[in-house]
Amino acid sequence: MSAPIYDKVALIGLGLIAGSMAHAMRRGGLAGTISGFARSAETRGTAREIGLVDEVAETAAEAAEGADLVILAVPVGAMGAVAAEIAPVLKPGATVSDVGSVKQAVIAAVGPHIPDGVHFVPAHPLAGTEHSGPRAGFAELFDNRWTILVPEGADRAAAARLERFWTGLGANVEEMDAAHHDLVLAVTSHAPHLIAYTMVGVADDLSRVTDSEVIKFSAAGFRDFTRIAASDPTMWRDVFLTNKEATLEILGRFTEELFALQRAIRTGDGEQLFDYFTRTRAIRRGIIDAGQDTAAPDFGRSGRTGGQK
Amino acid sequence: MSAPIYDKVALIGLGLIAGSMAHAMRRGGLAGTISGFARSAETRGTAREIGLVDEVAETAAEAAEGADLVILAVPVGAMGAVAAEIAPVLKPGATVSDVGSVKQAVIAAVGPHIPDGVHFVPAHPLAGTEHSGPRAGFAELFDNRWTILVPEGADRAAAARLERFWTGLGANVEEMDAAHHDLVLAVTSHAPHLIAYTMVGVADDLSRVTDSEVIKFSAAGFRDFTRIAASDPTMWRDVFLTNKEATLEILGRFTEELFALQRAIRTGDGEQLFDYFTRTRAIRRGIIDAGQDTAAPDFGRSGRTGGQK
Repeated sequence: MSAPIYDKVALIGLGLIAGSMAHAMRRGGLAGTISGFARSAETRGTAREIGLVDEVAETAAEAAEGADLVILAVPVGAMGAVAAEIAPVLKPGATVSDVGSVKQAVIAAVGPHIPDGVHFVPAHPLAGTEHSGPRAGFAELFDNRWTILVPEGADRAAAARLERFWTGLGANVEEMDAAHHDLVLAVTSHAPHLIAYTMVGVADDLSRVTDSEVIKFSAAGFRDFTRIAASDPTMWRDVFLTNKEATLEILGRFTEELFALQRAIRTGDGEQLFDYFTRTRAIRRGIIDAGQDTAAPDFGRSGRTGGQK
Repeated sequence: MSAPIYDKVALIGLGLIAGSMAHAMRRGGLAGTISGFARSAETRGTAREIGLVDEVAETAAEAAEGADLVILAVPVGAMGAVAAEIAPVLKPGATVSDVGSVKQAVIAAVGPHIPDGVHFVPAHPLAGTEHSGPRAGFAELFDNRWTILVPEGADRAAAARLERFWTGLGANVEEMDAAHHDLVLAVTSHAPHLIAYTMVGVADDLSRVTDSEVIKFSAAGFRDFTRIAASDPTMWRDVFLTNKEATLEILGRFTEELFALQRAIRTGDGEQLFDYFTRTRAIRRGIIDAGQDTAAPDFGRSGRTGGQK
């Protein structure tokens, strides 16, 4: 094992992502010491109990003090306040990064608090499960997944070091600008999540079909939606509020296309439906070829998918 | 192993469902002989090559002749024509059933062709994968899944025998009337599939986000949609055209709710979003408790979900 990439890493927030980072840092020997902080006393207690990090601090500033890398792993809506709180103790030459699902809003909220001489390199690991909390993490979460770095003019050496760190956590790294990141994620993640939440809500509302029927017969396609829709509500509220524009744009296009397909159903235009459904198969093939999924068939018992940001 | 439930079973259509039935019948010793027919010569050739059934016939009537149970396993839109073709050779006392995802339309199309003295007991196994064709089947497909019987006044003894057959294939069986079946499936399967197809189509259309980006970053939620949207285009075209009313009703409600959530995003109503997302978590919990999925987290590599009718 080579030398740690950072002597001290501070995790602000101790949920699924930060917890998985702690496990993966230890696996890879990437950090000398890991400190951590969570706003909830219960989460801090659990983190101490399971030894999630080396030191659980009582404030974000205490955790961040002296750290060479500080990771903001709180909901996007809370990042600005956390950045303001830790700003005074940040070590010169340190790197501040985050794991937020939205980048333009994080940069706007966090950027102004970063002192001169501290590097801010936003990041977004595209990994997750529908579970949350300090016990949900595991070392393999980032393996062969993508982490998007959004350096936006940050110091190149600091960005390259953070890239080595993420590679050490198991991820593939790609750089992108913030606006493009937010659009790509609106398509691949944010809009699909809102749609899944909506469909699950509709099923729950429909009085002529009981909840128990919905649950019992969920394997018929609906189950995948419920898994996506089980993700952390606070995190997702913040995603939609902070990536408003791109999400609404994609949802607008989605609605337009859905209306076209609804009209095809209503008018009995089988050819349009068949052509549409044939086209979407090719995309699936591409995802399997890209190694982001397997072609193994599912028959509804493995339950190993979804809920990723 | 006990005696077969039917001496001769005929499978009209040799795709994923029929193929899985053949494997599961053999596993359970449920049939004396299995005959099969598929419209495509290529499919018949493959079925012979892999020994999918005991005898591959050259016409549907040849396969159905003398059978104690005939299963119509063709797209819903083709069921009426197949029923007309086999009607003259159906053995008195035989049972005709199907595996269509829609029940009212199948009853309307098939029912009139069924001769006196032959029992028609429609059925729908809620199982599938995104794969299709004669090589896609496997014996475990129906294990612990639900099969819905829609006897609608059929002979009770014939319905009870078909129920024993499906139980032998591994399924849990429940009876329902045709209209309710079509509504329940519109919620749990048909609307989710159309929504998934639509979202995948939108991603493919968006010129500012490349297909390769969509594919690369699909693990962020979108991947589940592509799996659902990779299912057989002919089958799904027919589902939407024949369960038009219920599907359009559910899609109408879905659009209504989606608009409400879009408005909440636009106006920044975080509370509404948070409450909505919290409610949908409970449904997920119910599905895990009902044994239709597991709580195991996924991190995007197992690929074992979806595409079920």
